[in-house]
Amino acid sequence: MSVAAQRSVVVDTTGSAFARLQPVPVSAVRFEDQFLTPRIRINREVTIPSQFELLESTGRIDNFRRAAGKIAVPFQGLYYNDSDVYKWLEAAAWSLASGPDPAIEAMIDTAITEIAAAQRPDGYLNTYFAVERAGERWTNHDLHEMYCAGHLFQAAVAHYRVTGGTRLLDVACRFADHLCETFGPEETGRRFGTDGHEEVELALVELGRATGERRYIEQASYFVHARGYGRLAPPYGRFKIDYHQDHLPIREIPSMVGHAVRAIYYTAGATDVAAEEGDDALLAALDRLWASMMAKKVYVTGGLGARWDGEAFGDDYELPNRRAYAETCAAIANLMWSWRLLALRGEAKYADTIEWTLYNAILPGIALDGRTYFYQNPLEDDGSHRRKPWFGTACCPPNVARTLASLSGYVYSVTDRTIWTHLYAAHSADVTLPDGRTISLHQETNYPWDGEIAITVGTAGEFALRLRIPAWATEGVAVSVNGAALALPIVAGEYLEIDRAWHAGDRVELHLPMPVRRLVSHPAVAENSGRVALARGPLLYCLEGLDLGGAATTDVVIPSNAAFAAEEYPDLLGGVTVVTIDAAIDRSSADWDGDLYRAAQPQNDLESRKITAIPYFVWANREASPMAVWLREG
Amino acid sequence: MSVAAQRSVVVDTTGSAFARLQPVPVSAVRFEDQFLTPRIRINREVTIPSQFELLESTGRIDNFRRAAGKIAVPFQGLYYNDSDVYKWLEAAAWSLASGPDPAIEAMIDTAITEIAAAQRPDGYLNTYFAVERAGERWTNHDLHEMYCAGHLFQAAVAHYRVTGGTRLLDVACRFADHLCETFGPEETGRRFGTDGHEEVELALVELGRATGERRYIEQASYFVHARGYGRLAPPYGRFKIDYHQDHLPIREIPSMVGHAVRAIYYTAGATDVAAEEGDDALLAALDRLWASMMAKKVYVTGGLGARWDGEAFGDDYELPNRRAYAETCAAIANLMWSWRLLALRGEAKYADTIEWTLYNAILPGIALDGRTYFYQNPLEDDGSHRRKPWFGTACCPPNVARTLASLSGYVYSVTDRTIWTHLYAAHSADVTLPDGRTISLHQETNYPWDGEIAITVGTAGEFALRLRIPAWATEGVAVSVNGAALALPIVAGEYLEIDRAWHAGDRVELHLPMPVRRLVSHPAVAENSGRVALARGPLLYCLEGLDLGGAATTDVVIPSNAAFAAEEYPDLLGGVTVVTIDAAIDRSSADWDGDLYRAAQPQNDLESRKITAIPYFVWANREASPMAVWLREG
Repeated sequence: MSVAAQRSVVVDTTGSAFARLQPVPVSAVRFEDQFLTPRIRINREVTIPSQFELLESTGRIDNFRRAAGKIAVPFQGLYYNDSDVYKWLEAAAWSLASGPDPAIEAMIDTAITEIAAAQRPDGYLNTYFAVERAGERWTNHDLHEMYCAGHLFQAAVAHYRVTGGTRLLDVACRFADHLCETFGPEETGRRFGTDGHEEVELALVELGRATGERRYIEQASYFVHARGYGRLAPPYGRFKIDYHQDHLPIREIPSMVGHAVRAIYYTAGATDVAAEEGDDALLAALDRLWASMMAKKVYVTGGLGARWDGEAFGDDYELPNRRAYAETCAAIANLMWSWRLLALRGEAKYADTIEWTLYNAILPGIALDGRTYFYQNPLEDDGSHRRKPWFGTACCPPNVARTLASLSGYVYSVTDRTIWTHLYAAHSADVTLPDGRTISLHQETNYPWDGEIAITVGTAGEFALRLRIPAWATEGVAVSVNGAALALPIVAGEYLEIDRAWHAGDRVELHLPMPVRRLVSHPAVAENSGRVALARGPLLYCLEGLDLGGAATTDVVIPSNAAFAAEEYPDLLGGVTVVTIDAAIDRSSADWDGDLYRAAQPQNDLESRKITAIPYFVWANREASPMAVWLREG
Repeated sequence: MSVAAQRSVVVDTTGSAFARLQPVPVSAVRFEDQFLTPRIRINREVTIPSQFELLESTGRIDNFRRAAGKIAVPFQGLYYNDSDVYKWLEAAAWSLASGPDPAIEAMIDTAITEIAAAQRPDGYLNTYFAVERAGERWTNHDLHEMYCAGHLFQAAVAHYRVTGGTRLLDVACRFADHLCETFGPEETGRRFGTDGHEEVELALVELGRATGERRYIEQASYFVHARGYGRLAPPYGRFKIDYHQDHLPIREIPSMVGHAVRAIYYTAGATDVAAEEGDDALLAALDRLWASMMAKKVYVTGGLGARWDGEAFGDDYELPNRRAYAETCAAIANLMWSWRLLALRGEAKYADTIEWTLYNAILPGIALDGRTYFYQNPLEDDGSHRRKPWFGTACCPPNVARTLASLSGYVYSVTDRTIWTHLYAAHSADVTLPDGRTISLHQETNYPWDGEIAITVGTAGEFALRLRIPAWATEGVAVSVNGAALALPIVAGEYLEIDRAWHAGDRVELHLPMPVRRLVSHPAVAENSGRVALARGPLLYCLEGLDLGGAATTDVVIPSNAAFAAEEYPDLLGGVTVVTIDAAIDRSSADWDGDLYRAAQPQNDLESRKITAIPYFVWANREASPMAVWLREG
């Protein structure tokens, strides 16, 4: 592997003057666990190759061949289909960080060859506008030209960081140069413009960091600040102006609105710009937006974007369960945004959100076999919502793939002489501190199924090790070094710092108890009044009808004194720990007999029954049956 | 008033071979009550004249002048704006049934003059396709040409029935003839077609009944049966094929889907066709559709169409309160459909639905002052949803006006020697039986505020009087004649028949107790789990924040043993009976402090407080504050 591969990082803020935390390469962490490792292996062995086949069979790569004049066929699919190729390429590139794979490398080579051939002499690259629509470039902000460009840039950065190769990076830079020359403040002789679907902002910052080209970062800043003055529109089509976040300048937006993926990619990009420019006012606005989103607009899964109409954020507390949209891409976008805020702020709440979102809003987006996907992620279903192998709008599948392929980059960050541990999963790592020392670490744990975590420090030296204490770990947390309990104050939702002169072989043991937790919603969330959700550790649980012996999910009542037990089911759903519940079954729903409303009656006798809740992320991996996260409380 | 005025009826099924009930003229009933009478007076004195001004000021009548070549201005507004003029005209015409009004008559004259002048020589009439788009007639089924035609036909029928005048009827017939000549089975040399927004079907049947032209009824039947084979589309725009009810033939549609107003106008028209053709299979399908809609898709208000996206029916039990769409027009459409089913079936459930829908889903659509309107009718609100004076799509305001103007036509029906009483409100009436006898009736009551109803029979003779016993009147109902209790079995949700030789002055007293009722929802309605709604008599109640002393509607808990009292507040909201409740206030929502989810905690102490619920139909008539129908149960 090349030198560049050693610096393959998800988001490299190393040179960002205002980032607090610096990243650790994707290749620095080698997962050895039974939870993430199998998923990452399936991603590499099944998901990435099968998606490449789909890119070919659906004409997405042919569109590039067509644009290059190699074949004469009609354009296939939708105007944003190039982005699927780029996002897949990013996934494929990241996957090589864990070792070579000739088959994937061949696919990458094919993709890059076709992409490069389709680029126009002036750097422009978009297959929809390559032939009969060549004269329509940049005439409709909503046709995703910059969105596709952004995904190209991210793919190029990943490919460069992992392989050191610059073939795709050169393509990206030529297109980025074209963007910089075309769009900008009118007083500079360029034209006004910004993207109808945000994404290019964060991508330009990443490209600027990878190449050292400050003007890419300046261009990102221009795009961030060009919107909010209603210049993108009309027409908005059937949407309001806030669909594209063009209703107010970002510093004045009071809460997250409009198309959720657009909105969150936008704020992620703006956070990158703030990190580069040290713009405290912008960062304060982003803090407010993230906080209000997490306080009023996020599903308990971590899913975002309540409305089907416009794939959009709802009003505050508008969080319908069955009609949840909660696009997989929106959860990924929030992982990306939270990662950027974590780099700037160093606060554990962002890492908590990354973990929770990954396990409960992103992993549900892909089946256990790595071949089918959810676009929408409801919290209640009648059994009809099933994962699909692909979509006409196939944004989510490669988005999941690139996230899984780069997961090892989210485990650690470093500052000065401190290693920050964000995620727990058995692994070996070699973490390089800013002062150049490389510290070897080995983590043993069965997390997320239990909370016993042992970390062996393999390199002697004085440095601090910070461990994230999840916000849910409110009781009984203990930490020891070499068997001796530490008397440090342990605060849930913060990092615990152990700063000492380490000897090789020192063993830190962190004990995070995982009782089953009953979660309740803010009273303003209409559907969840009188309901509870169950969680254990970093996992949310749900019921599937298959496990209810014929009862409906709405028949199940969780008594306020219900006993719970966690039980390992190694043969179920790839091996999960389920939660068994002494529940009560209300069979009165059978008596309604065609009525929708009726006079209240005394509660029927409830039947006691032991039922099983499964982790939400594995739902819909068996035969179809109803599912529910929020359960009636007795 | 002319002879025709004596036969002014909402839907005249007198000649329909398969209708069981026959109508009573709108002019036969003279309301003398304190509930409907003031609303009907405001409708006539404020709403109808002010809407005419809006039709003028928004260019809707100018569009006709433009089409006639009288003025040279651009077309104003949306392609379906003609329908607002027609629906207003229907309202204005019905309003004359209670007596002459020179000002309204002059407005009607203006409207008819402009409409007639805009008609094309071949009978076609649509101002959107009158000038620059004249060549685009009938090229896009979704541009509401037949929808507008239908409202013209209904207006013409109302105008003819009330005034005996045929000026507008002639216009309508010429257009209807054009429709009949243009569209039909291809084997007859005509072209395939049906309306993208149903309405023309029921209107053609009404026109056929008014004129005796059977071919209008045959044309309605053609339009009903032409859809369901996917021939209307693509394109559907952003909707699915069921948006236009073109996915399945009507006999095979399992439940109400797609755009709610379209769907219900369609089934209402199909019911008219079934009434004319004696099509039992069609009627059985319509029975099923109505029953499934009322069992799975209706709000407790009577509102219909849960989704903003496509103004459409949701899935079964998908009934969000705050994001309810519940378009006022959809409720009116169900009043129309239920009235047609009532005529065919003579079952009290349809009259129950008409009353409930009128009081709790249609009256909320208009402010007490008769000048502002709701398009959407949520069951929960933060105080931001307010009635507006008009809309770009102004279907609802004149729809409410025509309903209020024709209300007296919904009080009675007749069969052979029986008078069916559907609605209760103080009034005098002269009801003509099919055998020619006219029976004078006088009803005294303070309904809907209390359930004491006294009916004085003013005409001697042998006949049966049927009284609707509302489905909610399950206990303590009593009936007497001249003070002597009747020993008849009284069944809630059926008609009680009193068949006797009546003497002039005989007095029937019906006692319908009105305790406050706690309603609960089917367990599958997600938002209403653990909640109750309050009703009394035919009125649904709600909370407004103004009456809660600073508590949020979501803070209010209704203990299972809460005491309720009905109290008359003559100075509140035009005079209403409120429900006072010994409620409990849960102030824990103030402690959430930015959290959206948290671990369940023991219930805080609740504070006892007496609060006031108001009838839902008067909500949002004071300063803005939150509102809720479904309340937490303690």
